[in-house]
Amino acid sequence: MVDNVSKEKMAAGRQEIIRRIVSLCGAINVQIDKGANPNIAIPVRGSRNVEFDAAGKKLVLGDKIAHRYLFNVGHARKFMQTMLVASYVKKDLLEDNLTATLRDLYYAKKRTIAGTKEDTIDEQKESDLAIVDFEVALDTFREKLHLRAEPKGRIAGEMVVVDRVRDKVDTIDLGHMGSGGWAVPSIVEQIEFKDVAAEYVLVAEKNALFDRLNEDEYWKKNKCLVMTTAGQAARGARRLLQRLNEELKLPCYALTDADPYGWYIYSTMKYGSMALAHESDRLGCPGLKFLGMSISDIEHYDLSGVTIKAKEVDIKRAEELREYEWFKSKPWQYEINKFLEKKIKAEIQALSSKSLQYVSKTYLPEKISGKDFLP
Amino acid sequence: MVDNVSKEKMAAGRQEIIRRIVSLCGAINVQIDKGANPNIAIPVRGSRNVEFDAAGKKLVLGDKIAHRYLFNVGHARKFMQTMLVASYVKKDLLEDNLTATLRDLYYAKKRTIAGTKEDTIDEQKESDLAIVDFEVALDTFREKLHLRAEPKGRIAGEMVVVDRVRDKVDTIDLGHMGSGGWAVPSIVEQIEFKDVAAEYVLVAEKNALFDRLNEDEYWKKNKCLVMTTAGQAARGARRLLQRLNEELKLPCYALTDADPYGWYIYSTMKYGSMALAHESDRLGCPGLKFLGMSISDIEHYDLSGVTIKAKEVDIKRAEELREYEWFKSKPWQYEINKFLEKKIKAEIQALSSKSLQYVSKTYLPEKISGKDFLP
Repeated sequence: MVDNVSKEKMAAGRQEIIRRIVSLCGAINVQIDKGANPNIAIPVRGSRNVEFDAAGKKLVLGDKIAHRYLFNVGHARKFMQTMLVASYVKKDLLEDNLTATLRDLYYAKKRTIAGTKEDTIDEQKESDLAIVDFEVALDTFREKLHLRAEPKGRIAGEMVVVDRVRDKVDTIDLGHMGSGGWAVPSIVEQIEFKDVAAEYVLVAEKNALFDRLNEDEYWKKNKCLVMTTAGQAARGARRLLQRLNEELKLPCYALTDADPYGWYIYSTMKYGSMALAHESDRLGCPGLKFLGMSISDIEHYDLSGVTIKAKEVDIKRAEELREYEWFKSKPWQYEINKFLEKKIKAEIQALSSKSLQYVSKTYLPEKISGKDFLP
Repeated sequence: MVDNVSKEKMAAGRQEIIRRIVSLCGAINVQIDKGANPNIAIPVRGSRNVEFDAAGKKLVLGDKIAHRYLFNVGHARKFMQTMLVASYVKKDLLEDNLTATLRDLYYAKKRTIAGTKEDTIDEQKESDLAIVDFEVALDTFREKLHLRAEPKGRIAGEMVVVDRVRDKVDTIDLGHMGSGGWAVPSIVEQIEFKDVAAEYVLVAEKNALFDRLNEDEYWKKNKCLVMTTAGQAARGARRLLQRLNEELKLPCYALTDADPYGWYIYSTMKYGSMALAHESDRLGCPGLKFLGMSISDIEHYDLSGVTIKAKEVDIKRAEELREYEWFKSKPWQYEINKFLEKKIKAEIQALSSKSLQYVSKTYLPEKISGKDFLP
């Protein structure tokens, strides 16, 4: 029953995007019929149109719009490429209910234009940019266009998910994924959450921490979900985290190393990034909190023997982050200044110097029960 | 029933390694009691003791042995570090049935030696080398010592695995892993294969190909397993592939881009690598065959419009590979020479220029039914 409802919901989602594509391209046809110069309205990306929405706690696009014209020497090529994207997404992907990578699209639409020596697309960079333009022009994001990004990340814990691959429906118990965990897919729009016993989500920067917590059955003993992004979070992992936070209202906590790179990973998951400001709504998780490891933890947990000297690049990054509007809160300024003063960083695995299970048995329970996190 | 047998088997495996550690360290105690210079015998690694075993089709260590002495200024530090590894593996890992990363070990054993300004370990590189020494000295590999490497890779298909996390036993149906797949763990020794309907294994270099084949239910329609290594294969993925090939006798086929880097990834999975020659027995998969994409496929499948010009580094690598004993077969020499002559490469995703499902519906069935693979 649930499956049919959901199947219809997914189909309706595809229909809605097809409707928007037809509407956008229909408008171009009208312009052509009128003898006008066909154009597409595309919100401007790039830092001059990126704003921090303090209320929504997200980086968002401002209201600058650019028009791309067919009869304009500087626009014509991009106009054509945007139309190639439109055609591929509608005909090859959405209508057939298939997904593809940006690279597939590039290969499918790259060809020499008849009677010329000109290629439709020279480098994949061009079609990638056309895809982003198309996303913002349709006010959607690439996963809804059935375009996959490189997936990364694993998850395990107290929840069952129903996932769907075209007409195949799989019920996956994240509490029985062994030592591997479930691989977080590129696209998570179709996933339904079921039997949610988890009361919060821990998202770790490192695979090693996931493995530690999974081996210690941390998620079982503490009724939660444990996820790793395996470095900077992929789009699928970010969107999944957002959905867990916003749809299920699960508190989400980030675990990174105590260094500016860790803060940056956290910041991207929470607020989005400059480069993807147009997609913060879909990928950001403003409810995310920073559980650790903090620079203050180094003292508190007596880790001064296992710290690492900060590098020039760390210090430069910290100085940048300190100026960001979304790091202006008192606790973060305190953290960043402490780092800049001491010029040392620490990995969360430094806790292994105490004992292997210290992180599961002492550090995390203390931090969580003490609500010791940064905003 | 199966579960208890297997639990006992795993416990016996741990006991066997503990026995070897006790034996190695017992011998050192005897040397100390005798007033002799305590030493450990360690097979020499490094290219001067690496040979290609043509019969076994593996890179292996030769028979050169080095002795490491406690009372030798050049050895003492390494001797001490090897003992630290021995102690950690036995007491912290095997006896407690826990696993850890190389970094955990480093943090756990790094400390300032009392009364000196000397640290037991300065850089993780030192303890990593001590671990490798310890592996070869015990004639085993690090997974048996409960040391995890960074995991990478996903798998799906017609098989059920039973995985074990300490006392927790999970039964995982790889045919119902949705769009994500099961994440291949760091250590796969404890995995049991059950309900194997798969008749062969496809291992793809790229996530994108895994996603394509999974979406097309290739593994269901063709009764197989599909795995991705997501680039150069991690240790867990290599060992899993070997076990599927050797224990289940499943033919295994590699799918990489048609370029020297793809050949290198293939070669490492099949024969092992110079750096890890001491572990080819445990990580290599001599039965692996190269299904594609071949340089010959570029012509055969009419992909000349979507090739990429080879770079200097590609050409250099191809010239190196051409000289390797394990690339000396006629078909490989033909391939490599063809590449060096044409100086073009192609990605397997270039098949998307034909149609998205071409790889699933035409390319792979043709290659497999025609047994069109390289040795």
